[in-house]
Amino acid sequence: MYIAVIGGAQCSPEEEKIAYEVGRAVARSGAYLICGGLGGVMEAACRGARDEGGMTIGILPGPFRSDANPFVDIVIATDMGQARNAIIVRTADAVIAVGGEYGTLSEIGMALKMGKSVVAIDSWRIERRGKIDERVVVAKDAEDAVRIACAEG
Amino acid sequence: MYIAVIGGAQCSPEEEKIAYEVGRAVARSGAYLICGGLGGVMEAACRGARDEGGMTIGILPGPFRSDANPFVDIVIATDMGQARNAIIVRTADAVIAVGGEYGTLSEIGMALKMGKSVVAIDSWRIERRGKIDERVVVAKDAEDAVRIACAEG
Amino acid sequence: MYIAVIGGAQCSPEEEKIAYEVGRAVARSGAYLICGGLGGVMEAACRGARDEGGMTIGILPGPFRSDANPFVDIVIATDMGQARNAIIVRTADAVIAVGGEYGTLSEIGMALKMGKSVVAIDSWRIERRGKIDERVVVAKDAEDAVRIACAEG
Amino acid sequence: MYIAVIGGAQCSPEEEKIAYEVGRAVARSGAYLICGGLGGVMEAACRGARDEGGMTIGILPGPFRSDANPFVDIVIATDMGQARNAIIVRTADAVIAVGGEYGTLSEIGMALKMGKSVVAIDSWRIERRGKIDERVVVAKDAEDAVRIACAEG
Repeated sequence: MYIAVIGGAQCSPEEEKIAYEVGRAVARSGAYLICGGLGGVMEAACRGARDEGGMTIGILPGPFRSDANPFVDIVIATDMGQARNAIIVRTADAVIAVGGEYGTLSEIGMALKMGKSVVAIDSWRIERRGKIDERVVVAKDAEDAVRIACAEG
Repeated sequence: MYIAVIGGAQCSPEEEKIAYEVGRAVARSGAYLICGGLGGVMEAACRGARDEGGMTIGILPGPFRSDANPFVDIVIATDMGQARNAIIVRTADAVIAVGGEYGTLSEIGMALKMGKSVVAIDSWRIERRGKIDERVVVAKDAEDAVRIACAEG
Repeated sequence: MYIAVIGGAQCSPEEEKIAYEVGRAVARSGAYLICGGLGGVMEAACRGARDEGGMTIGILPGPFRSDANPFVDIVIATDMGQARNAIIVRTADAVIAVGGEYGTLSEIGMALKMGKSVVAIDSWRIERRGKIDERVVVAKDAEDAVRIACAEG
Repeated sequence: MYIAVIGGAQCSPEEEKIAYEVGRAVARSGAYLICGGLGGVMEAACRGARDEGGMTIGILPGPFRSDANPFVDIVIATDMGQARNAIIVRTADAVIAVGGEYGTLSEIGMALKMGKSVVAIDSWRIERRGKIDERVVVAKDAEDAVRIACAEG
């Protein structure tokens, strides 16, 4: 199973802590962690997975493998900018969003479009015609997020 | 100026009517209309632009130019699936969302990530940390949407 | 019909002259000219098509529409680097290579892979197991190249 | 170090044998093997690397991880068709072509465009203006190919 962890390249200390715990929980579940390969939430999640002996994959927007954070095991350099978000989500069985900026929102949209499960911690709430979209499942913590992702992915 | 009109390949009659008016207003402004090239909102917008003698561009997800709706003047077949959303948004100066499904949400996210203006009619509202994101500007009708897009794009 | 004209962003004066004539002949045939949107062969071909009132489309590797040469009518900014070559070829009915560097070779390979016709003027010859690949049709001049592309595309 | 092994999804028994040996030699060198993830040369190379305990990465053109051959450790589903060739080559430090069809030719072109080393065994010879291009280094066997790739990559 491949679980994507998505979130900003900059993040708050609290988001970093959550992302680290998500990474640990992903690795403990036996799933591979796939992400955008950069800093912030992505780096914290990779560090967490690494600390539990998990496998981490980073799909970079730029052309250089060396741009990956130091906790990525397998680095893919796409040189495709934001279009690389589609690859992360397409490859994953389920997506966990931690906080997140606009790139994260684009990945949530693509994941839902592709029919993948999306679990969110302190992330975007999306609303249409006055109704919150319940396809984005809100998790109460990292363990909960990974449990839901594994069950639904 | 290139204005993207984004929205679902299926849409309600009301969204279709709005999209048609957006297309007309884009053409009257002198801007080129760029979209995903398929049906629903995309087709209605292209039809509107065509009726005003405007130029329409469709960036298709699949490999065949023949999948474009009949109101697209310039058809680009990407064979890149959802990653083609990044091309639509990257090429545009501003983005107008009409209604819209999850693909539209992904395009809104990418447009904001790339620093482009996003105008919405009956589309997604996005909220983070209990606050509506005001970067998505809500327009009251088609004319208003294009006026804002032209001013900010 | 869409005909791709491919070739280097730098080119010799002779290649430039041929590319200009190819552009003119494409426009006279009524086909749209699609290319990578940059300088050299691409610019000369667009200039030729423009001089005959034809339509020119440029698919750029970078994120900025302003990088297109001044003879491109419709500019698509992909921000996808060399992956944009696949879009040029996928969209075209036939491909005409004029001179050309390694990017041109990659486009010839993709065009043949996709089953598109490839016509070459002073371009790559490709050989496997001691045999020249005859799928790349050698044209004797610009008129001849466009005639073949229109017949086979 | 990441070494790409490129070649047809169908191949002769002899190409399969060479690809298997290339895969083994890549793994023994300590490099990761990256490829298109499908059958033929790609599968044989992955099988060889796997037999030596190496790491194999497959970048698929389609949307489903399940399309990978059984010897791929890390599967990336791009849903980007032939554009995925750019990702394989961009990620690699050097490229080894074994036999190969037109997709292989496109990868050779892109690799040279990106300034990567290309080593060929029974693959394309490319010629321009009556001269063979010597940037494609011909190896005499699998060991030799990997040695050159490691030295130049």
